Amino acid sequence: MESVKIGLLGLGTVGAGTVNVLKRNAEEIERRAGRSVEIVCASARDLNKPRACDLDGVRLVADPFEVVTANDVEVVVELIGGASLSRELVLKAIEQGKHVVTANKALIALHGNEIFAAAQDRGVDVAFEAAVAGGIPIIKAIREGLAGNRIEWLAGIINGTGNFILTEMQSEGRSFADVLAEAQALGYAEADPTFDVEGIDAAHKLTILASIAFGMPLRFADVETQGISAVTQEDVQYAEELGYRIKHLGIAKRQGRGVELRVQPVLVPEQALLANVNGVMNAVMVHGDAVGSTAYYGAGAGAEATASAVVADIVDVVRLLTADPGHKVPHLGFQPHAINDLEVLPPSEIVCGHYIRMRVADESGVLAKISGLLAESDINIDAIQQKEPEGPEDDVTVVMLTDEVREGDLAEALSRIESQSFVRNGIKRMRVAHFDH
Amino acid sequence: MESVKIGLLGLGTVGAGTVNVLKRNAEEIERRAGRSVEIVCASARDLNKPRACDLDGVRLVADPFEVVTANDVEVVVELIGGASLSRELVLKAIEQGKHVVTANKALIALHGNEIFAAAQDRGVDVAFEAAVAGGIPIIKAIREGLAGNRIEWLAGIINGTGNFILTEMQSEGRSFADVLAEAQALGYAEADPTFDVEGIDAAHKLTILASIAFGMPLRFADVETQGISAVTQEDVQYAEELGYRIKHLGIAKRQGRGVELRVQPVLVPEQALLANVNGVMNAVMVHGDAVGSTAYYGAGAGAEATASAVVADIVDVVRLLTADPGHKVPHLGFQPHAINDLEVLPPSEIVCGHYIRMRVADESGVLAKISGLLAESDINIDAIQQKEPEGPEDDVTVVMLTDEVREGDLAEALSRIESQSFVRNGIKRMRVAHFDH
Repeated sequence: MESVKIGLLGLGTVGAGTVNVLKRNAEEIERRAGRSVEIVCASARDLNKPRACDLDGVRLVADPFEVVTANDVEVVVELIGGASLSRELVLKAIEQGKHVVTANKALIALHGNEIFAAAQDRGVDVAFEAAVAGGIPIIKAIREGLAGNRIEWLAGIINGTGNFILTEMQSEGRSFADVLAEAQALGYAEADPTFDVEGIDAAHKLTILASIAFGMPLRFADVETQGISAVTQEDVQYAEELGYRIKHLGIAKRQGRGVELRVQPVLVPEQALLANVNGVMNAVMVHGDAVGSTAYYGAGAGAEATASAVVADIVDVVRLLTADPGHKVPHLGFQPHAINDLEVLPPSEIVCGHYIRMRVADESGVLAKISGLLAESDINIDAIQQKEPEGPEDDVTVVMLTDEVREGDLAEALSRIESQSFVRNGIKRMRVAHFDH
Repeated sequence: MESVKIGLLGLGTVGAGTVNVLKRNAEEIERRAGRSVEIVCASARDLNKPRACDLDGVRLVADPFEVVTANDVEVVVELIGGASLSRELVLKAIEQGKHVVTANKALIALHGNEIFAAAQDRGVDVAFEAAVAGGIPIIKAIREGLAGNRIEWLAGIINGTGNFILTEMQSEGRSFADVLAEAQALGYAEADPTFDVEGIDAAHKLTILASIAFGMPLRFADVETQGISAVTQEDVQYAEELGYRIKHLGIAKRQGRGVELRVQPVLVPEQALLANVNGVMNAVMVHGDAVGSTAYYGAGAGAEATASAVVADIVDVVRLLTADPGHKVPHLGFQPHAINDLEVLPPSEIVCGHYIRMRVADESGVLAKISGLLAESDINIDAIQQKEPEGPEDDVTVVMLTDEVREGDLAEALSRIESQSFVRNGIKRMRVAHFDH
């Protein structure tokens, strides 16, 4: 049978990795897909830049629109990133009746609703396994592998840079700034690390995971997003003393008739599976009503790990080139007419345990006053520690874990505590997550 | 659209679980699959036995052949187990042009080559996600999610009963026989526990995993299979002192032009992911050349966890009912004409580190003699411990870990050591596995 003709947008790290994997594993891929896969055309901003891959036989062009409109291209693989030009290119490719494979989480999280509607109308596939958790086949696991379940919640370490930083802070006792600088030197973090450390990248991915888990539209703007730049070495140590590790998690959970969607640093019990995912690795736990808790672990980034997912999507598209579009796996795992919007709960409605840290005057009766004010709001304290004063000041640090509490109630109680004269500065808090598995 | 009509063979634990999941999640399943799924007919040996599920509207029959030949059945779900009657029923269903979903590992491991060939000829699907690791979508991950990779190795805890026993032996210091009796009382282990504790069940599953990983025919007879009944509390403790845990693993690994296929108790470093999979849970690590190491974790058994995989297969079959058979995911993940046989290496050719335990006379120079005999065969010792004599005897126990060694060479060296007068009884050994992840 004739080979399937690919047009590639972008020849950066993942682009070169994809070229290399397709070439090296050409035989294995043809044995699986039943047809060979050939890159006929690729675009790059600078055609003269040296590449980490062999481009023999590939037509190189500077204008990416040449790729998406080329007559010989059947499948467009979008690896340029960003959400603006990529959107135009992908919509153009769909208009041309071409299938699309993309690794672009921002594109899907921000414009997925529009893109999937266009693809549905035109009867083409848009595959995006590589957009979440690199090489881990988590999109496939949720959309297909757990299709018999009502998904109750999922929680994941879905940003390798952030996990590398938190792992180093915990295991080596280093500061956030120090580890970030190393991550930048190692190439794990960008020169502008905002997307990674402030949780935006993870929020893009969580948006996608939540939609395919619950069958709801992509709602990136509603994800409560907090980064890890405010996590201090002190917090890491207090958490450890209490038997927890701080992890930057994306969490999507049904609660009543709504869902909570959040990306934030969270205290996880040290024996939990997610607490033991270290360095740049990713892992996602998914809890279905029939299957219980399952977990998926692997490299969340890197040229070839991401290429692994891109190529898997290409094979999926190839396998279904001739299938009736009505019978393919729907883009969000649910049929387009069956996508139901769900209310995304405001943070105040989320029920969760909390870690609380505050600096108070070293006076007798302070702990009793704090406990009393919390008790007035029916908030139970699970653990409380008072730390010896450090340095010349007379203040002490108080660290607490609360039982589950509606966050709005906690915020009110804490603002009453904050107004007491013995409290020295703003009160810091982080959520605590317990996962059954 | 009209509902898809299912015929169910068997109404035991998994059968009832499947009925319950299909009913409870009917809406979620229809939203995903685009069609509703309806069980029209089911067979059971005893029609009057009370069932743990609601069978309203289901035609109950005593003869399973009535199900596979029923005109209104489009998909046959085989959940009776065993490899003889189930084989006849599945071949008959295929002959009738019906798709098949099965949870039966013995059937696929022993008769899969014949069954898939028949299904290929007839253009129907035989789906078997539930045959390995219960609800974990591991078949889908390997056949589809990692389709861009050359799979180098996989290693898994794929029998929950065995893992429960080893976990209890390790964490509670109990004996094999004691924990087995409890597992039987809890219903985790059968009255005849041979299939689980002697590794036959795990070997069935490993056979399937190896075929879809490497694209080779199912070769159950060639799996080197050892159970855990010979693992003693002493071994568990010595392993722990050396920084290892004993796990019952199924391992499939490329080595040169062949593959090693083995199920056996293995020492795993205590910080490794697989060492921390406890109780009845299952986990499989899969290493691909592009993606690196990935892992999949979840419940390996249980009514609803297994039903989760059965229903996912039903949804897959429904989605592809009208697809061109030539474009479906091939049964073993590779196109039938591209299945290549690989030599399964004899145990003597496997290269691995080993744990060795022997009882020797408490004489000076014994350790030096042992090390010398091993050194003559170029076998390096990684760690060696001599245990204090216990009781009235003058013997001591010597425990060693070797570096990697060809197993045939080790066996020769050990037989020379065994012939020394200072060796008191048979030498016990287990393999050691190091996984990069």
